[in-house]
Parts: sequence; structure tokens; C-alpha cells
Amino acid sequence: MDIGDRIRIVRGENIYEGLLMPSDSSGNIVSIKLDNGYNIGFRKEDVELELLEAGRPFSATMPKIYVEHKEELPNVAILGTGGTVASKIDYMTGAVYPAFSPEELLMLVPELSELANISGKEILSIVSEDIRFDDWKNVARTIFKHVEDGLDGIVVTHGTDTLHYTTAMMSFMLRDIPVPIIFVGAQRSSDRPSSDAAFNLISAVNFSSTDCKEVVLCMHANMNDEYCHVHRGTKVRKFHTSRRDAFASINSMPIARVYGKGQIDFLSNYRKECGGGPALDLDVEEKVAMIKTHPECRDVLSCLIDKGYKGVILEGTGLGHAPSSLHDEIKRGIEEGIFFGMTSQCIHGRVNMNVYRGGRMLKEEGVVPLGDMTSETAWCKLCFALGHHEDLTAVKKFMTTNIAGELSEVSTIDSYNYCR
Amino acid sequence: MDIGDRIRIVRGENIYEGLLMPSDSSGNIVSIKLDNGYNIGFRKEDVELELLEAGRPFSATMPKIYVEHKEELPNVAILGTGGTVASKIDYMTGAVYPAFSPEELLMLVPELSELANISGKEILSIVSEDIRFDDWKNVARTIFKHVEDGLDGIVVTHGTDTLHYTTAMMSFMLRDIPVPIIFVGAQRSSDRPSSDAAFNLISAVNFSSTDCKEVVLCMHANMNDEYCHVHRGTKVRKFHTSRRDAFASINSMPIARVYGKGQIDFLSNYRKECGGGPALDLDVEEKVAMIKTHPECRDVLSCLIDKGYKGVILEGTGLGHAPSSLHDEIKRGIEEGIFFGMTSQCIHGRVNMNVYRGGRMLKEEGVVPLGDMTSETAWCKLCFALGHHEDLTAVKKFMTTNIAGELSEVSTIDSYNYCR
Repeated sequence: MDIGDRIRIVRGENIYEGLLMPSDSSGNIVSIKLDNGYNIGFRKEDVELELLEAGRPFSATMPKIYVEHKEELPNVAILGTGGTVASKIDYMTGAVYPAFSPEELLMLVPELSELANISGKEILSIVSEDIRFDDWKNVARTIFKHVEDGLDGIVVTHGTDTLHYTTAMMSFMLRDIPVPIIFVGAQRSSDRPSSDAAFNLISAVNFSSTDCKEVVLCMHANMNDEYCHVHRGTKVRKFHTSRRDAFASINSMPIARVYGKGQIDFLSNYRKECGGGPALDLDVEEKVAMIKTHPECRDVLSCLIDKGYKGVILEGTGLGHAPSSLHDEIKRGIEEGIFFGMTSQCIHGRVNMNVYRGGRMLKEEGVVPLGDMTSETAWCKLCFALGHHEDLTAVKKFMTTNIAGELSEVSTIDSYNYCR
Repeated sequence: MDIGDRIRIVRGENIYEGLLMPSDSSGNIVSIKLDNGYNIGFRKEDVELELLEAGRPFSATMPKIYVEHKEELPNVAILGTGGTVASKIDYMTGAVYPAFSPEELLMLVPELSELANISGKEILSIVSEDIRFDDWKNVARTIFKHVEDGLDGIVVTHGTDTLHYTTAMMSFMLRDIPVPIIFVGAQRSSDRPSSDAAFNLISAVNFSSTDCKEVVLCMHANMNDEYCHVHRGTKVRKFHTSRRDAFASINSMPIARVYGKGQIDFLSNYRKECGGGPALDLDVEEKVAMIKTHPECRDVLSCLIDKGYKGVILEGTGLGHAPSSLHDEIKRGIEEGIFFGMTSQCIHGRVNMNVYRGGRMLKEEGVVPLGDMTSETAWCKLCFALGHHEDLTAVKKFMTTNIAGELSEVSTIDSYNYCR
């Protein structure tokens, strides 16, 4: 049997039918996509298989279409990196189908041709938790090349797990880009009734016509197909494992609300003007760690110091505290030239290391409070900072300067969109 | 000059007045509490000091009061561990004053005598980020002793930074306790106009008259002094660095709403009946780590395996994923007998390691998905599980069994109080 074939699986008294999925690496599991869109896997030794209908290869299901170039529409490139938003295409035959041509996209989401002249390219085909430094450089380079080619907007599809790490990293690697760079993901693949892939993609392409010259992320804003939120790439995090409105702006409002291919309402300020010409800047230090501090967590820190790490983001408790049992290790790390930045695992709110004695002591020792930056953004920024500066005073200055909207002004401290 | 003295500080052209605070450990900093309640610190070498008025020792400000024992009221012990909620007392003279007698409490919060016959004891006097295994055992032992002494409810004051770690740990160490165990903290000390200390304490003592036989946490529910939420000790986290409504129930509703000394509305089910007699169970394994996975974080894991750790909570991305660059280290760890449990750094929602190939692979290798448990609770529970079981099958069974409300039933998956 081939991937994409419709098969029947019998396990004891239970019978399941669906499309055969690619096997896992062990080869011991057989998985099918049920008609309700969910995947289910079985140990091969536990089941009997029966072929119901041979699948058609993906290319056979895809007629060639011709899309007219419209002068009045912006030219937008859709770049693919993998993830669920792309699997809306991949899983049409029940199989992973990595090709990602503009024609395929337009056939699946025909509304896109009303909004832009679409071109497309697949950069990577990975699940997002596997993204690494080389991938980020590859993505940044490809985006930059398309900007230089004169595109009016770039949309990048990306898995959601680490989407906010990538948008933060791109916010530092890509500087003064004169067009919107819009990342988009999906929580549910398109073969499920509740898929958000098409709506998110339409909203992202729609937003590419604006004058917002930032790296942003466009995702469902609530449980309906009503509108998406556009979040600043440095102020967003994945905040739910499965809901379609999984992403939230942290300590800030989203930039905009996009009603699919309809209206766009701006909710907060955004960057319309760029400084100098666009720049691509890929220098990052890779020996940077992030530690969520908690009672009895000293060993992790000791180890990172011993392994020659150059920077550590401490995701502290409360206003930016760490157990005093860590203080002497932090001191040792600082003496060895390691940069320590402090964020908070509370997520909401800003660190303030002046209120309590423990915070003051850490600050005196040299730990740098990082305002209301998210831990994930702080980690990306520190990789970037240490890729550019050896002198820790320069690193500190860079880390506490607002580079890409990652630090809110103190005056806006209470304006974040947080409630329960 | 002595702590508590009213002094003037002159730094260049700026003049500050306030009560002299205890010095930091370096002795280089002089701190005062300003009249607006905020503390401010200066390097000694930068300032000149002037005594304005000698402070009075705390005992002089505190008349002895006599509180009548009322038969109709419950007998409640307030146990102190430190933190801001206690500092409402400590900072009355501008000084840290660690004594914590029932008379002092009642004078500061006289409403308590309407609600219960209060006794009190100070167990610890630490900032909560410094809490360690021995402290937790001490707290559990003291609570248990007071339960055995026949108290009708126990209220424990605690710093907020790690309050949710402690409530989770107590939920496992204290079993079948026949009275409410209510932890309470404060985000602002009582000498600030916006203090929440008294209101939280009153609400906590009020809740001690209920039949809720669980370890819970009572804190402000919104920005007003309107009501507190009572959160299950295993389902709560600190979710804001500074706001008074800093704590939120995660993937569940709070147990109750308490209007200060007034009405109590229950919002969800809670445990009214206990199984056997009360038990104190302090066996914990200390070599347990929690790692927030992110791109390029392999070194931390390698190190923990090398250091002989017995258990690791992986706070994965999305539905419970980790970079595939970690997989061989996880496999090595499992071969060496390490237990790996998976939670999600998304915080909201539950892990599901069946949806994507990476999750399925990790699960096949032996990583155990931990439903909708918070990472902090999962870490506490794993310390406890490994303190009781050597066999990893038994550990897995314990970790995936609902012991103290830490795992929600799947049927309630969408009922958590999450919005933005």
C-alpha cells in the first residue's frame, strides 16, 4: 500500500478507515487520517490492513491554472518553511507533499488572487521546533533577497511551536526593511472543519498592502473566523497548545485587526518609516542559554558556566528574582565574562530589580533587568547582541535599548491586553 | 542612625526624606522608605545623611490587646513564612520586624477577630524565591501539627514569587487533610495605598470556615478590593510581576470567589470528603530538573544527564514537542533510567503527543505527556513521585493519575478561564 491510499484498519473488534499516512521513523506504527481529519496510529503487530482504494498522486489532483498579473495589485511572495499552515496542502492526499508552488496555493486559496500577485518559494520544510541558527539565517537571507527584488510584501508560512522565536530573530536580523514581513501559521490543517490556515493566509496577504514596516505575525484572534490579529514579532508568544487563537501580544496591544480580505483596523502604533537602507545582519552567538529559575535549580547554571556559555537569560520569578543559592554561581559567571539578563516567568508585567533586596543584589552584581521583554525575545536578542559585541557594557547598552519594539515604554506599562 | 529613624538624604541637588531601611549585604547602599511607600536606595559614597527624628522601636508602637475567645467562631492558625504579606507588619517602622504574634496581626487587621479565633506562629522568614526542600518539609510538618492539634483551618502567609510551587508541593505532601489549608500572599506591602495584604488575609480567614478540604491559594481577583479568587494549589501560577490580581487558575476555573469578610461563591467543584486519616508524606527526590525547551538548548539536557538527575520535566513547545536535536540525548537519558515528563510552555491548553510525528516519536521513546498540568506542578509532583517509586512504570502511573486536582478531565478541556 502507498501513502495516500484509502485503507481499512482492523484492531480486534474496532474498524477504522482513512488515508494512509507516512510512517514514523521506527516503521512500527501505521497511521491513517480519519475522515474527521484526525490522525490515529497503531502498532503494526496489533492490526490488520486492507486496501480500499488506491490514492491518486497529488499532481494528478492539481490542474494547471493561469493567473493573470494585475498591475493594480501588490506583488507578494509567499515563502514556505513548513508547519501546519503548509500541511493544508500536504495532507490533501493524506500524504506529506512538500511542494509549494504559487499555482497550488492559489488553487487552494483562490481569494489570494484578489489581493495580490502571488509568487512563492519553499525555503525549508521542517516542523518548527526543529528550527536552528542556520535555518534562521537561510530564512532571513531569502526574505532579504525578495526585498531586494522589489516585492511589495513578504508572507512567510511557519509552524506555530517556535513561530515567536523566529519572528523575534528576524526582527533583529532584518533591519530597516521597507515592506511588511508577515509570518503566518495555522493551528489546524485544512482538512479539518475548523482549519484556520486559509483565513490566516488571506489576512496575512491582505496586511501586506499596508505601510507597516515591521516583522509581524498574523493569526486568528478569537475562536471564530472573524478577524486575525497582527502581532509585533518581538512582543508575541504562543499561549495555547491547540486553540486557533493561540497567539497573544504580551505587555502590548496587537498592531492591527484584519478581517480576512476585508477591513484592516490598526490598534496601536507601528513603524512606517525606515532609517537607512535595508540591511541583513546574520551575526549571532550560539552559546546563549535561557534558564527558568525555580527552587533548587543551581546545577543547570553551574553546567552552562562550565561549558563556556557567553550569555544567559534568567527567566526569574516575580519582579526578576533568583534563588540566593544561585547568587555565587551568577557572580562566578559574571567574573568569567558571561552576560546575564533577567526576564520574568510571570510573562505579564515588567521586571523591577529595585524593589526587593534579592533583586538589588543581583543587579549590583551585574545582572541586567530587561524591562517587559518576553524571555523568548530576550534570548534571540542576546544571541544577536553577543554576535556583535564582545564588550559587556556594549552588550548591556544594546540589550536595554529598544531595537525592534521589544521594550515597551514605561508609560505604557498598564496598557497591555491582559485579562481573565 | 538606626533602622526606622526618619532621615534626609542629599544627593547633589536632590533631597529625599523617609525611614531608614535595613542595609543590603554589601553595606554600600543606604535605603529609605519614602512617604509614598516606595523604597529607594543610594550608594553611600554619593550621598549625605541627616537625622530628622529617631524612630520608635516596633514594640513601643504596639499596645497589648486582649481578644476574647468566641465559642461560635472557628479556630484558625495563621502561619508565617515571610514575603510581602508579612512585610505589612515588618515595615511599620520602616524596618524589617520578623515577629509575628496573633496580637500584632489582630491589631493590624482587626476584622480577623470577627471571623475566627486567631492563633499564629512564624515558621520561616524568607523571601519566597529562596524556599528549598527543607523549608517545604518544615512548612508541611508545621501545618500537619496544627491539623493534629484540632485547628479548624490553617492560613499560611507566603511570598508570591514561588507561592504556586509551594501550594503544589503541599498538595502532595499533605494528604487527606480534613480542614482548608489556605495560602495567602500580597503583591504590595501595607504601607502603600494600594496594599492587598489585609484584604487577602481577611478573605483567606473567611474561607477557612468552608468545607473545602484542599490546599488552596487566596489572592486578589481583579484590580479592585472587590473579591479574591481561591485557586486550587495545583492549578495556579503567578501571571503578572506586579499587579494585585497576579495569580490565575490555569486550565481550570478558580474554586471560589470570596468577598472579603462577606459572601463566598463557589465557582467549581472541590473536595469535601477525605479518604483515610490525614497523612504527612515528605519523601522527595531532589535531583529533578525543569527545562524550557527552545531551539539550540541541547547542552542543558546533556549536563543534567551527566550529573545523575533522576527526572526531568521538559516544558516543551506547542502540544509537547522538543527539537529533534534533543532526541538522542533524551533516549540516552531514558536508557540511564531518567524519567521524562512533558508539559507545554504555551501554559494554556493540554499537551497531545499523538498529533505530530515528533511528539509520537518522543512518546514512543518513553517521554510521558502530562495532560494539562502546569510545568511547576509537574516538577513538584515528579520530585514527590521519584521520592516514592524507583520503578519508572510506577512513576509514570503516579504522574498520569490525578492526585490533587492537578490533571483536569479531558471533558473540561475548554472550560478554563482564559481570555485576552
